[in-house]
Amino acid sequence: MAMKKKAVTGMRDILPEEMEVRNYVLSVIRDTYRSYGFSAIETPHVEHLENLLSKQGGENEKLIFKILKRGEKLDLSGPTTEEAVSDCGLRYDLTLPLSRYYACHQSELPSPFKALQIGSVFRADRPQRGRFRQFTQCDIDILGEASWIAETDLILATSRALLNIGFKDFTIRINDRKLLKATADKAGFTEDQYEQIFITLDKMDKIGEDGVREELGSAFGMDKTDVYLSLLKEDPKALIEETGSALNEIIAAVENAKSPEFKIVYDPTLVRGMGYYTGPIFEISMDEYGGSVGGGGRYDEMIGRFTGQDTPACGFSIGFERIIMLLMERGFRVPGEHRKCAFLIDKKMPKERMTEIWAEAEKMRRDGITVDIAQMKKNRKFQKEQLEKNGYTEIRDFYSDSLQH
Amino acid sequence: MAMKKKAVTGMRDILPEEMEVRNYVLSVIRDTYRSYGFSAIETPHVEHLENLLSKQGGENEKLIFKILKRGEKLDLSGPTTEEAVSDCGLRYDLTLPLSRYYACHQSELPSPFKALQIGSVFRADRPQRGRFRQFTQCDIDILGEASWIAETDLILATSRALLNIGFKDFTIRINDRKLLKATADKAGFTEDQYEQIFITLDKMDKIGEDGVREELGSAFGMDKTDVYLSLLKEDPKALIEETGSALNEIIAAVENAKSPEFKIVYDPTLVRGMGYYTGPIFEISMDEYGGSVGGGGRYDEMIGRFTGQDTPACGFSIGFERIIMLLMERGFRVPGEHRKCAFLIDKKMPKERMTEIWAEAEKMRRDGITVDIAQMKKNRKFQKEQLEKNGYTEIRDFYSDSLQH
Repeated sequence: MAMKKKAVTGMRDILPEEMEVRNYVLSVIRDTYRSYGFSAIETPHVEHLENLLSKQGGENEKLIFKILKRGEKLDLSGPTTEEAVSDCGLRYDLTLPLSRYYACHQSELPSPFKALQIGSVFRADRPQRGRFRQFTQCDIDILGEASWIAETDLILATSRALLNIGFKDFTIRINDRKLLKATADKAGFTEDQYEQIFITLDKMDKIGEDGVREELGSAFGMDKTDVYLSLLKEDPKALIEETGSALNEIIAAVENAKSPEFKIVYDPTLVRGMGYYTGPIFEISMDEYGGSVGGGGRYDEMIGRFTGQDTPACGFSIGFERIIMLLMERGFRVPGEHRKCAFLIDKKMPKERMTEIWAEAEKMRRDGITVDIAQMKKNRKFQKEQLEKNGYTEIRDFYSDSLQH
Repeated sequence: MAMKKKAVTGMRDILPEEMEVRNYVLSVIRDTYRSYGFSAIETPHVEHLENLLSKQGGENEKLIFKILKRGEKLDLSGPTTEEAVSDCGLRYDLTLPLSRYYACHQSELPSPFKALQIGSVFRADRPQRGRFRQFTQCDIDILGEASWIAETDLILATSRALLNIGFKDFTIRINDRKLLKATADKAGFTEDQYEQIFITLDKMDKIGEDGVREELGSAFGMDKTDVYLSLLKEDPKALIEETGSALNEIIAAVENAKSPEFKIVYDPTLVRGMGYYTGPIFEISMDEYGGSVGGGGRYDEMIGRFTGQDTPACGFSIGFERIIMLLMERGFRVPGEHRKCAFLIDKKMPKERMTEIWAEAEKMRRDGITVDIAQMKKNRKFQKEQLEKNGYTEIRDFYSDSLQH
């Protein structure tokens, strides 16, 4: 079989220039979240198919990369099914593995547990610009905290991480699944209609209010639709009291503690795709970018699926790949780059002198200076240009004839 | 289907205590390799099956996790084969993806290219203590450098990384595939016998010289075996000149530039499992640990499999999981831990005061102090013990009744 040079469809190789930005951003994110008391954890990339297909992942469940069974467990000798030939797959998010992790290790973890998870996830999506089949997610979650302390701390921590990376003028939009449901109920919709209503409402930023009105009207009638849309515009005060939503507390606490460089606003049309949310939900919008660069919410019923006992849980995910894309597009440079020096060595250099050169390089490297050692090439001009392009501001030539040195 | 709490067979969840050590070690490794001029890159976890099965990976090719095709491409309606239902799989090492990466992106990369790759690899090995089906590898490679500058710089960089983590008294053992082959040739073995001979020789540290003698003797006769074993003990000087091996240059340069805290020694019995090595090979032994904690060598023919044109290549891999295991066993603590403060809040705290408390926490966090905010629990003693266990040396109680404060 011939070897293939390109990465598999929909996945990507990352070049050094972007990796530098990625590693810098990850270290800023890790440092920020540590200052909020989050602990890093890791879960395997491979997860039981039973868990992946447990209806926690919505549309993502259709996009699972399934792994073939091995050895005697695999029977391809006759007609068979996907379920029979596969028992595990690649994770499509970090929330489901986190819930499994917490269910498994709860007794070894503090309560509440503040988790930071950074890792690759996999979705067999149709390849398109800016969407990849493997991408990095970066989630913080607070497990075991029922009060709005969780939401407030998650929003403050995530905003601080974005500010520390260098973003400002972003907006945290916030809503509550309880309010969404109560409003739909008040408009006379029945519970089995909620999902379809929320899917339409979620398109507000794409099709506008007229589009939403039309879509809901043709499905459920104009009368109910108009009542619903006007209810969404009302002051949510009464509804918040009725449902016991903590929206006001969260918004007030964030308003008072936050930096002036970002806003937090109530958005009655915010839905968030995943069906597992049970309370407050939030999303980050950035003016310079059309879509969301992060989101999250409360999901108090997922861990109970593993343990039989509901555990309050709330999380916030940064859209890591979008953040990196925005930074690369604006030509972001990692701040505080250090001294980089290249030693170019004559090919005929006697080996005794080589060891001296190395000893000198080692000393400089121990002092934190980057030292690259390479043989001189015939096209020295091109070689130096390349080095300069890669940030080498000092280039030293070492000739075998010491007079030239 | 019931949800499963445990990680999939052979893979593991990583708890916060170990993650702290892992992230610290990775940052030391990254900083060290950067000072030697290595650039971080990333390749996808999923690789073409054609590449994975191209006979570059030796025994590891039997351990590939294969991924099921999707949609119309998958036909399970009758008897079929693994090749027909799968076209990609999880990578079993980082060397093969690096070779593909270099073949694909050569024109965008400097020459020589010094690559650092850190990432998960997957092998469907039989689960056993200390061996996992997903584990982290940490490789540096120099591509496009034919001279022994590559080997020397790789050995110095890897040793420096281990020293910076805190290891000393380790030994770099070095040999050359060219010497191994020339010695076997001199003893009268034929080329088709080399592989079996090297597999036996590789067991020297496990079965001793007597064991090796017995195994080779019964396969190839005692006469040849005794000649071979005595040749291995001879001064390699003549053989090095004959084969053009750069062993002496590498050893001398490392000896002169290295720190006194580790040794480099010629080991004529060092083999290294992978068949793709073409020149010098090396391995790190640590007294406190029976086996190898890293290894590498020159593989000048692999990239040519992709491009049709041989490209000199040489790499060194740190046994990351073993390093972490050794550090955890000796109770390693990340140096320079910073101030950690917990705010415990009375449940009845009025929300106006909550926002003041948050503002104070935010200020401290911006100053680099870790501040955790949590509700007071009924069992305050246990709660404080847990926090102290997690490194919180300051605990502040906030009561709703200000007199108590």
